[in-house]
Amino acid sequence: METLIRSLWHLPRDLVSDGYDQAILALADQVPMAINEYPTGTECFTWFIPEKWTCHDARLVTLDGETVFSYSDNPLHVTSYSLPFSGTVDRDTLFAHLHSRADLPNAIPFSFKYYSRDWGLCCSHSVKETLTDDEYQVVIDTTFEPGTLKVGEVVVEGESEECYVFCAHLCHPAQTNDDMVGVALGVDVFRQILAGPKPYYTYRLVILPETVGSAAWLSHNQHLVPQMKGGLFLEMLGTEYPHALQRSNTPTSQLDMLCELIVKEADEDAWSADFMNIVLNDERMFNSPGINVPMLSLSRVQKREGTQPYKEYHTSLDTPESVHWENLNKSKELVLSIIDSIEKNFIPVPLFKGELFCSRYESIDYASMFEIMNAVVYKMDGKRSIADIAKEARLSFRDVLDFVTILQKEKLVKLKPPVEN
Amino acid sequence: METLIRSLWHLPRDLVSDGYDQAILALADQVPMAINEYPTGTECFTWFIPEKWTCHDARLVTLDGETVFSYSDNPLHVTSYSLPFSGTVDRDTLFAHLHSRADLPNAIPFSFKYYSRDWGLCCSHSVKETLTDDEYQVVIDTTFEPGTLKVGEVVVEGESEECYVFCAHLCHPAQTNDDMVGVALGVDVFRQILAGPKPYYTYRLVILPETVGSAAWLSHNQHLVPQMKGGLFLEMLGTEYPHALQRSNTPTSQLDMLCELIVKEADEDAWSADFMNIVLNDERMFNSPGINVPMLSLSRVQKREGTQPYKEYHTSLDTPESVHWENLNKSKELVLSIIDSIEKNFIPVPLFKGELFCSRYESIDYASMFEIMNAVVYKMDGKRSIADIAKEARLSFRDVLDFVTILQKEKLVKLKPPVEN
Amino acid sequence: METLIRSLWHLPRDLVSDGYDQAILALADQVPMAINEYPTGTECFTWFIPEKWTCHDARLVTLDGETVFSYSDNPLHVTSYSLPFSGTVDRDTLFAHLHSRADLPNAIPFSFKYYSRDWGLCCSHSVKETLTDDEYQVVIDTTFEPGTLKVGEVVVEGESEECYVFCAHLCHPAQTNDDMVGVALGVDVFRQILAGPKPYYTYRLVILPETVGSAAWLSHNQHLVPQMKGGLFLEMLGTEYPHALQRSNTPTSQLDMLCELIVKEADEDAWSADFMNIVLNDERMFNSPGINVPMLSLSRVQKREGTQPYKEYHTSLDTPESVHWENLNKSKELVLSIIDSIEKNFIPVPLFKGELFCSRYESIDYASMFEIMNAVVYKMDGKRSIADIAKEARLSFRDVLDFVTILQKEKLVKLKPPVEN
Repeated sequence: METLIRSLWHLPRDLVSDGYDQAILALADQVPMAINEYPTGTECFTWFIPEKWTCHDARLVTLDGETVFSYSDNPLHVTSYSLPFSGTVDRDTLFAHLHSRADLPNAIPFSFKYYSRDWGLCCSHSVKETLTDDEYQVVIDTTFEPGTLKVGEVVVEGESEECYVFCAHLCHPAQTNDDMVGVALGVDVFRQILAGPKPYYTYRLVILPETVGSAAWLSHNQHLVPQMKGGLFLEMLGTEYPHALQRSNTPTSQLDMLCELIVKEADEDAWSADFMNIVLNDERMFNSPGINVPMLSLSRVQKREGTQPYKEYHTSLDTPESVHWENLNKSKELVLSIIDSIEKNFIPVPLFKGELFCSRYESIDYASMFEIMNAVVYKMDGKRSIADIAKEARLSFRDVLDFVTILQKEKLVKLKPPVEN
Repeated sequence: METLIRSLWHLPRDLVSDGYDQAILALADQVPMAINEYPTGTECFTWFIPEKWTCHDARLVTLDGETVFSYSDNPLHVTSYSLPFSGTVDRDTLFAHLHSRADLPNAIPFSFKYYSRDWGLCCSHSVKETLTDDEYQVVIDTTFEPGTLKVGEVVVEGESEECYVFCAHLCHPAQTNDDMVGVALGVDVFRQILAGPKPYYTYRLVILPETVGSAAWLSHNQHLVPQMKGGLFLEMLGTEYPHALQRSNTPTSQLDMLCELIVKEADEDAWSADFMNIVLNDERMFNSPGINVPMLSLSRVQKREGTQPYKEYHTSLDTPESVHWENLNKSKELVLSIIDSIEKNFIPVPLFKGELFCSRYESIDYASMFEIMNAVVYKMDGKRSIADIAKEARLSFRDVLDFVTILQKEKLVKLKPPVEN
Repeated sequence: METLIRSLWHLPRDLVSDGYDQAILALADQVPMAINEYPTGTECFTWFIPEKWTCHDARLVTLDGETVFSYSDNPLHVTSYSLPFSGTVDRDTLFAHLHSRADLPNAIPFSFKYYSRDWGLCCSHSVKETLTDDEYQVVIDTTFEPGTLKVGEVVVEGESEECYVFCAHLCHPAQTNDDMVGVALGVDVFRQILAGPKPYYTYRLVILPETVGSAAWLSHNQHLVPQMKGGLFLEMLGTEYPHALQRSNTPTSQLDMLCELIVKEADEDAWSADFMNIVLNDERMFNSPGINVPMLSLSRVQKREGTQPYKEYHTSLDTPESVHWENLNKSKELVLSIIDSIEKNFIPVPLFKGELFCSRYESIDYASMFEIMNAVVYKMDGKRSIADIAKEARLSFRDVLDFVTILQKEKLVKLKPPVEN
């Protein structure tokens, strides 16, 4: 993941832009990926696709002709989707359009004006504080033109058409934990499951510009919605923090239960919270009225009240230098482990009646399996999944799975896929 | 309300009596009211209509011919439905039939013997304590004869036949908070909604003698019961206390939820309790087996254990002088506000899919409506009513209603009436 | 019960054995009992019937020819289902096959090797500590041969085929509280209900060797399983401890609710716990997958962590001398009282509408029955049983039953049997 992230993070990946296209094409080299294109103006639920935006030049210049900062140094120096503007402005006018962060004086903030448009520049607060002249020259040379929003889609066909969707957004220019890392992790995970045996479920990875990208893809794939049993949004997985699992808007879903079990087993510092209580990303579109796919979100962020999810969030400090690569790798293993549990979370249907006569079955050891057997056997009612049983019995998913696997080998249960309520 | 109460409170409004009839006819002058008549002896569920009772005279007289107290001074001096009796009795015999309240020495208590009959007189405890003679003369000239129990019914026809019932009893002689005030408040509220636009639901106000009146009206209107979605009993709303909301026997009803929301919003000192834990009135008949209309009760009483709901309760002290008129007016506003919320508590059914693209809708301001939008939109599943959403999201009914109204104006939702389980 | 227990407790009642047969035949003299026979090798769910086992002789002898202990002194001196073995063994070999209990130095432990077989002897720890010779002579003369496992079945035919099953196991050699007492109590209770009027439900008492006996009987009576509404396993009811009620695997069953109510009313020190958290006996087979009969267990054991249910458990100390006969008699009364409540736990269906006009019904006294009437009447929805109402209203089963009986006498309710979910 590190190489991929380092090669793409710095691109000016605005919603519909050459920088975004360059990134998605580079990703398509890494894994078999369909690129769905939605032209400017296409209606997508209540949304429409914006124009392609290009920034040719953006600078703040003193009347003496000295460049204070320039887009060529960092694409964050201009507000994403800024209107073009050129002219001399007094300092008050400039400051009304110049974004900085007093709390992070050396960071250029990420600002965007996708729909209610204006012109805007960004710089670090320490630079802003040097701006003492009465007037400055502003150069913002941007163009808006028809283009196509692009959604990359990786599909791992399973035996069933029922599918799980993984999602990450690619659209924040020159930023890394938000969410170049989610994209890279998703690509890596899907490369790995594509290489393995054919799974039971179908898996989809969608890489898109935030929100409008989900609206575009979902509105054009509504026939797939009934097949989507759940989803997981991936973001900010290279920070210093423990895992944070945000439940879906249907917290009783099998995937909600599974993720809660698996995440807690993998990371004892992990925490979880209800829908919309940790992050706000594309999982909102998937959980929304008329779609109602239970998509959770997995990230690494601090528990907080009103503060940023992590220090470098939405600033020029969010670079590969701030990524904890080991954490990112652990998160990848966790996502693989979630997929593994999805594949194995079946309903064990007993093929026997009565208390088990253990002495008859070679692989069942009465003494050592006494506890797990009692906890599992009397909950196997042909309706409870392995995750249901693990949750009710306060056991790990793995322990219940292992015992059910033994029962299956002894032909004492058959497995059937769970059905969502 | 005050004029009406002051003109009728003092009447000897016994169950079936001239005093009651005089009162109900006076009310029928205030608002279009049908008067349903049920003759003595009519079977009403397990009940039957008692005789009309008239007290022509009731007095305690010393052997010297001096009148100690008389019905002509206050109708409470005789037990309601007392048998006639005339004769000289020793003091012990007298005291076995003479009701007083040691805890309220200056109050004449309200006593009644509707069914297990006897003769009885009432006086203040301080008067009783002056009765030191060995013998007294009792004069109780009462008659029992066929009559008709009368139930006043005000109907506001709505677009739907589904209806809500408001109820108050008129039958306690010469008392005010119990429940002349509930009657007057009901009449005033119904006059107001009759004057306004045609409501969606039909509303019925029934004014009746306690319990047997409800049995009479309900047993003769059983075809209406399936249309009754809920009800509210009104009583003791002019005391000094905060509102007390007693839930129905079906506390999951839409009306239970609505009243709990609206009452708490209107009166921060309001308290609530389960069915039969605050008062016992006609709401029992409505909530009973075979009827099962979720009728709540709204009153102003103190939280108490075994004591009276308010100091003057069931005594001659319960006069207009003890009424807090401002409280009564506030309660009227509260009842109007409950009716308003009943009218507006619909189910918002989304006409859109996906997360909303706020920038597209003039009346939705993303920044200021962010919290309410997130709280409401993801709960609109076509099953939850506005009250359901407000309760689950711990928001006020008003806030949710306002946002749903905006969505409706933007043609993003349609509204349908809730269905009781 | 005492006579029966004293006459049978000492028999070598191994699973399939002459001693067991002798006991079951003696029981069949006490009460009309069918004896179901299942030959060795019969498949019963995942189980099969073991051989009949006979111990002709078992002794530990010194090389000097002195008998240390002998099966003829106590049948516990040999492991139940021990393989035959004769020969001289060194002390280490002997000790690997000699069972004792260091924590109870004067008790011979009960050991068994029904399926994973070996030879084995048992003695008290104090005797074991005297074994200082280098070698000993072991004589175990046992034979395995085809036989029949026997299940005694007492049936009390009721008006309905729906039935309740009571169960106790007869198979522990020379032990009393585990579970000769449960057997004797069951026989006594059934003798009593056979003598009485025909009950509404059918009752079955099954007396069997533990676990494999249940598998045998249930697998050959699967047509009865849908009629079994619940069951109760009886064991260890003569100890010094209060009652311990173990819920079934379907803790919402009517019988679970009933037993919890009745046991708590009868024994204020009684405690209860979930399925498999107090004892492990045949109730496991009844509650298992594919059978799913809610069988509870009633015993008298101490709350404990990892220790024995009572001091003499599974040792030669578990004799009639350790039985608290008064406790056993109280438990019998409790079981009769449970059966009485099963018979009476019907659903009261109101035949009236509205609040009751108590003055009309001779047997309803408004004043004294006010509380119970309010608690019961408004919960009679034609779905709740008497036990449901008692549980919800936090009243005793008896109080609710008594009031419902009054309503029934007054023809205000009819009763219908509850239906399990």
